[in-house]
Amino acid sequence: MRILILGGDGYLGWPTAMHFAARGHEVTVMDNYLRRRMALEKDSEPLVPLVPMPERVRRFEAETGKRIRAVVGDCCDHEHLLQVVRDSAPEVIVHYAEQPSGPYSMSDYRSARLTLENNLGATFNVIWAVMEAAPDCHIVKLGTMGEYGTPNIDIEEGWIDVTHKGRTQKFLYPRQAGSLYHTTKVLDTDLLWFYVRMHGLQVTDLMQGPVYGLSTEETDLHEELATSFSYDDIFGTVVNRFVVQAVAGVPLTVYGKGGQTRGYLHIRDTLQCIELAANSPPGKGQLRILNQFTEPFSVNQLAERVKTVGDRMGLKVQVQPVENPRKEAEDHYYNPAHSGLLELGLQPHYLTDEVMASMLEQVLRHRDAIDRRKILPRVRWSS
Amino acid sequence: MRILILGGDGYLGWPTAMHFAARGHEVTVMDNYLRRRMALEKDSEPLVPLVPMPERVRRFEAETGKRIRAVVGDCCDHEHLLQVVRDSAPEVIVHYAEQPSGPYSMSDYRSARLTLENNLGATFNVIWAVMEAAPDCHIVKLGTMGEYGTPNIDIEEGWIDVTHKGRTQKFLYPRQAGSLYHTTKVLDTDLLWFYVRMHGLQVTDLMQGPVYGLSTEETDLHEELATSFSYDDIFGTVVNRFVVQAVAGVPLTVYGKGGQTRGYLHIRDTLQCIELAANSPPGKGQLRILNQFTEPFSVNQLAERVKTVGDRMGLKVQVQPVENPRKEAEDHYYNPAHSGLLELGLQPHYLTDEVMASMLEQVLRHRDAIDRRKILPRVRWSS
Repeated sequence: MRILILGGDGYLGWPTAMHFAARGHEVTVMDNYLRRRMALEKDSEPLVPLVPMPERVRRFEAETGKRIRAVVGDCCDHEHLLQVVRDSAPEVIVHYAEQPSGPYSMSDYRSARLTLENNLGATFNVIWAVMEAAPDCHIVKLGTMGEYGTPNIDIEEGWIDVTHKGRTQKFLYPRQAGSLYHTTKVLDTDLLWFYVRMHGLQVTDLMQGPVYGLSTEETDLHEELATSFSYDDIFGTVVNRFVVQAVAGVPLTVYGKGGQTRGYLHIRDTLQCIELAANSPPGKGQLRILNQFTEPFSVNQLAERVKTVGDRMGLKVQVQPVENPRKEAEDHYYNPAHSGLLELGLQPHYLTDEVMASMLEQVLRHRDAIDRRKILPRVRWSS
Repeated sequence: MRILILGGDGYLGWPTAMHFAARGHEVTVMDNYLRRRMALEKDSEPLVPLVPMPERVRRFEAETGKRIRAVVGDCCDHEHLLQVVRDSAPEVIVHYAEQPSGPYSMSDYRSARLTLENNLGATFNVIWAVMEAAPDCHIVKLGTMGEYGTPNIDIEEGWIDVTHKGRTQKFLYPRQAGSLYHTTKVLDTDLLWFYVRMHGLQVTDLMQGPVYGLSTEETDLHEELATSFSYDDIFGTVVNRFVVQAVAGVPLTVYGKGGQTRGYLHIRDTLQCIELAANSPPGKGQLRILNQFTEPFSVNQLAERVKTVGDRMGLKVQVQPVENPRKEAEDHYYNPAHSGLLELGLQPHYLTDEVMASMLEQVLRHRDAIDRRKILPRVRWSS
């Protein structure tokens, strides 16, 4: 399969690129290093320093004999993206090329504007590049479970039949997100759905929950193949942040009551899900939406898990609720469907004590690199 | 009342500005002439040539003794908009500053990109300027009935209670629009609703149907106060286009079967609705959505109306269905609620034979200025 991975330098993009290349696919990655620049600006550098893309690619070839083609470029640059699509003639585009942080998107005008323009601009250009140069290509887009928010009814997989005054209509499931970043993903889905209807694109929109973990088959081959692992309040997802706090001896920062519940998944399952989606395209004119997570947890449950396993390893983990910097329900109904990917063949890796212990062990090896100043919330939703 | 009208040079913006100024309000208009530039680029100039904003304003003052402050500027320029909001300290912002044409937004990459960036960028900057400089200001935003599309259930006013598996949640009414332009308005509503929830803005989002007419109390004072009246396939709305075709002796171009039904209103009722909304703000933290039209018609019904009245005036009107350049349902259920503005006090001007005759008479006075080459559809939804 010829695969183009946009945002292929990121936390998930780089492991995805290696995953497909290791399995014999023809992989091109495109990335403009936006994520690295933002981390630098916000003093949010990842735990393990990253080597540049060309070095990663050379190291990967040295370890596996497989090549990945890397292009430094901005998906918001229509001409450049179009050229890359023409050159790589992808059968599948995996689109990760977005500013991925809720707190970043809520920090000030500049960051909010960048999030809106980058995310919508990239998605828009992907749509047009496909219409212009690869009309049969399957777009696999990373959405987020955060698009749905926390409604008081069951969350379905993307669509819902609404019966109203005796008549029925199928709609995109109504969404209301909790940050501007998550809102840009709502807008992405609206845009994709519009062009699917008008121009017969084929799209899979994966509503992914928060991802944890730093280890995949390929990242483990060499430390230069490590992925970008963030643990700060802006780019770090909650499980990764808690693991680093436990190792650093900093109390786990539960925001507010801690009843906030989301569906989580291991980074290895992200790779599995992308592969399953890529292997079974939905067909032209279809927008397929799949909810991509393996098990739900509340923040309190996660803190307890980290504490239990950490204490067993002698870390003496403390949990310290802090004032919630976000505006969100801290106690709510949450029952999202997620059968689509299981039906495609997903074999989940659950968050067992062994998985938790192995994350803690990996982070322990980098204990000295942890910067404690990055851990407490710096961005508030309302000023 | 201190009112800032964004897009105050347009078909509706300029009459709105005069309407409020004539009634003693303190009016500032801001416009970057985007609409005029697009008309020039697309060979879509309006029926009556427009004088520049400063001349319009001087003429208006000469006729009425009332001043309108006009600023040439781009709402996508955050610093400029913020300065104008600081200087004018508005209690109400009326936001028309968007690329308003479906066909324009569907014509090519460049036009589509401009529509997305301009419309989202302007709305985003309005939100931020209000948060930063006028947090109590009431934003009156022009949305479109086109946001809803043509679902097979009743269209409510912005919100719907969805009962699903025994539980109920109130959602924004799910929307799916028929052009990229209309889709940007869907995205606008999503953005506004996000910032209303997060920052307690107060917003009225007016879902307006297609507007017809070229005459208001103030435009009639002097020909230099005329509004931008388009009759071409790109910027002309259907009633205005049909009226011009009837006068020019060109058959009325019904797209496809002509069963496409929408809710229409006279330009005088647009002014009335804006004033009613401005006079009764919804309160902080509220997104009020009102469906702004007075009566529904199918395209065939409109063609018939124009023909009946035109024939009576000796115009020998012909109707000629043409292949539909758009992708839309040509025969569909349509039952949208529109009681909110009536409850606020709207006194509708319906499309009577007298109103139709007076439009035809006005256009007859400019018969020689009609360019027949602009009337047939030039933009197709699918290539």
